[in-house]
Amino acid sequence: MKNNPKVEIITIGDEILIGQIVDTNSAWMASQLNKEGFSVFQITSVSDNENHITEAVDAALKRVDIVLLTGGLGPTKDDITKQTLCRYFNTELVFNSSVIDTINRLFPATKNGINELTYSQAYVPKNAIIIQNATGTAPITWFDVQDKVLVSMPGVPSEMEWVMLHEILPRLAKRFNTPSLLHKTVIVEGYAESALAIKISDWENNLPACIKLAYLPAIGIVKLRLTGNLPDKVLLEKTIDIEIEKLRAIIGSSIIATEDIPLELLIGELLKSKKMQLATAESCTGGNIARLITSIPGSSAYFKGSVVAYSNEVKEAVLGVSKELMVERGAVSQPVVEQMAQSVLRLTAADVAVATSGVAGPDGGTPDKPVGTVWICVCTKDKLISRKYNFSTFRDRNITRASLAGLSMIKEILVNC
Amino acid sequence: MKNNPKVEIITIGDEILIGQIVDTNSAWMASQLNKEGFSVFQITSVSDNENHITEAVDAALKRVDIVLLTGGLGPTKDDITKQTLCRYFNTELVFNSSVIDTINRLFPATKNGINELTYSQAYVPKNAIIIQNATGTAPITWFDVQDKVLVSMPGVPSEMEWVMLHEILPRLAKRFNTPSLLHKTVIVEGYAESALAIKISDWENNLPACIKLAYLPAIGIVKLRLTGNLPDKVLLEKTIDIEIEKLRAIIGSSIIATEDIPLELLIGELLKSKKMQLATAESCTGGNIARLITSIPGSSAYFKGSVVAYSNEVKEAVLGVSKELMVERGAVSQPVVEQMAQSVLRLTAADVAVATSGVAGPDGGTPDKPVGTVWICVCTKDKLISRKYNFSTFRDRNITRASLAGLSMIKEILVNC
Repeated sequence: MKNNPKVEIITIGDEILIGQIVDTNSAWMASQLNKEGFSVFQITSVSDNENHITEAVDAALKRVDIVLLTGGLGPTKDDITKQTLCRYFNTELVFNSSVIDTINRLFPATKNGINELTYSQAYVPKNAIIIQNATGTAPITWFDVQDKVLVSMPGVPSEMEWVMLHEILPRLAKRFNTPSLLHKTVIVEGYAESALAIKISDWENNLPACIKLAYLPAIGIVKLRLTGNLPDKVLLEKTIDIEIEKLRAIIGSSIIATEDIPLELLIGELLKSKKMQLATAESCTGGNIARLITSIPGSSAYFKGSVVAYSNEVKEAVLGVSKELMVERGAVSQPVVEQMAQSVLRLTAADVAVATSGVAGPDGGTPDKPVGTVWICVCTKDKLISRKYNFSTFRDRNITRASLAGLSMIKEILVNC
Repeated sequence: MKNNPKVEIITIGDEILIGQIVDTNSAWMASQLNKEGFSVFQITSVSDNENHITEAVDAALKRVDIVLLTGGLGPTKDDITKQTLCRYFNTELVFNSSVIDTINRLFPATKNGINELTYSQAYVPKNAIIIQNATGTAPITWFDVQDKVLVSMPGVPSEMEWVMLHEILPRLAKRFNTPSLLHKTVIVEGYAESALAIKISDWENNLPACIKLAYLPAIGIVKLRLTGNLPDKVLLEKTIDIEIEKLRAIIGSSIIATEDIPLELLIGELLKSKKMQLATAESCTGGNIARLITSIPGSSAYFKGSVVAYSNEVKEAVLGVSKELMVERGAVSQPVVEQMAQSVLRLTAADVAVATSGVAGPDGGTPDKPVGTVWICVCTKDKLISRKYNFSTFRDRNITRASLAGLSMIKEILVNC
């Protein structure tokens, strides 16, 4: 068995190269492959063009041990991956009746029988291993190329994900020996990348040779990724954890999490463990905090709901915010955001609430309250914190940063409950 | 000047190859480049490794006319793009004082002076054109390589976007002749990809040779992309529009839009033109419809707000949904979703409202109402439509599809108002 195999992901489709879709498949695949110890050497996106696919496949098979192709397997004319691979591997398409059986089992509702285009999915390369796709009509094609492997799978994300988890990763794990790579991520808030690098430079310079550090700046946070490589996985984990503890001694209060998990999941776990329920009153974040919280399965156990009070009428009619206060101090102000939080706490009978009010932009800024000014308040029955932020001039970033700051303040009040 | 130049985008960063981030930069760049007539031939993602960057750059310069690099320009140790390009182009780093001037102008708040890491950004390759970055600390490096061009720019999305729009695209437009490529997209709902392909096969087979068709299935919809290529841009646009009209005669009622714009933007335009205001009452979509609507700049002109009634207590206390009804028929039912919509319409004094209630999963399904069952209602003062959907078994897809269906139903009721 080959050790430390390298992978190349090739995503096929004109829609990627004209920028009509974002290729989320390769990030998902790369993260799953890395978890299993397969390192991804390169990601290549090419068009639905026979010469181009052929060149990319040929170059990849020279560079790496495993080539994973997604896309170009649809039943319509613009999809040509299957035909291209047949020519490249000098084989032909043959009819495979079990593909039809699978499609009939998957989509019994197709009462008029399978249409001609779907039927064409049953024609598959002769000298390949055909793996059934339990989530769609295009089967998976696995080619053994001497000691290397090439797999062609659908590009529809949900199909690709099912196929990777249930068919491809288990087979690759049997076929290759993977090293003990380990990634751990520390999420830090309140520092710019270069300021953080200077603050922790002694720690960074004294990291053991088996650990590599990377800085990943994101909106409002910097992620530090520690990647370890040692044959002994237990020792490796311990070594990384010791370094994280040393880091905590330097910038402990700025560390939000020591796992690369989203804040909304972390908060969900905290709420469950404290048997508390959350509500939100959102103006400038427009429901985005509620959306993030409810993206987590099982969030109905700890999320009551939200009032998205985008207009002042709704702030007044639903949340009972004083009209005089809004006229006097403005909707983007400390007393208004505090009334919003306290009101939604009562209204929904929640234990903790967060409220946001700000100028997301691009319009609506004033000299006093320019675009990016956001007030956020979190409260419980007996605690209240409110804070003013000055974010950027971009609407999408202001919404994201305000949501992140709101989540971070929820975490702050929960940890002290 | 060179005609029809081909572009390769190379994104650099270990975080891409371990799947820690989704590379959204290349899709954004590809879409902007395509608008200007530059066709993107390949997108390649490589690690922060000198040999690998060198090989990718070398291969790209053989394949294409323009190579655009993003990433690896941070001030920390893991970023090595600048040093690698110096060695590749056989040059050295020299100090450039205008980089420091730009940083001082951009970040005047840095009272203690620029820190040493930020200072290092002023060392730039000697034989390149240095373009100032008005949004961050890393300058842009432009190499002329005989008749080809290589540009290295930051990987932070907001910086890259500014740099592309204000510096790179205008310079490329002066340097190369681009063809009259034109993409138009028709968004179709209610068809699976293969069923749609059969329905419109005659139309597809009779498309003029200058138009290429692609099918892009997404959650709940299929996008048809028509790409035209003719020297005469006016004639080209007319030719494509004629084909879209022919398509409308076949599947007109299933065409949601003839532009590749998100539904939330389309609805915003409709609401503005009809001077109507929207509210949402969301259970299973958890605020996602409100989030989509408020992602559009200026949405405060037509969006009142939302009640995210995730728990039955909030459905009762805030929206006044009858408790008996919820016990008798269940929260996921036609009468409950209708009460939600009508109630939020009154509560917020909106002109049109949408409500969702469903089983997003993975838990909470019953034989009667399995995971994926969603009731949606839209109403105005005198109209009401409610509909039951059966989506998938995946939580994220159910939330996305329910939000899209809700938006689509808003559009349906608005068009007939």
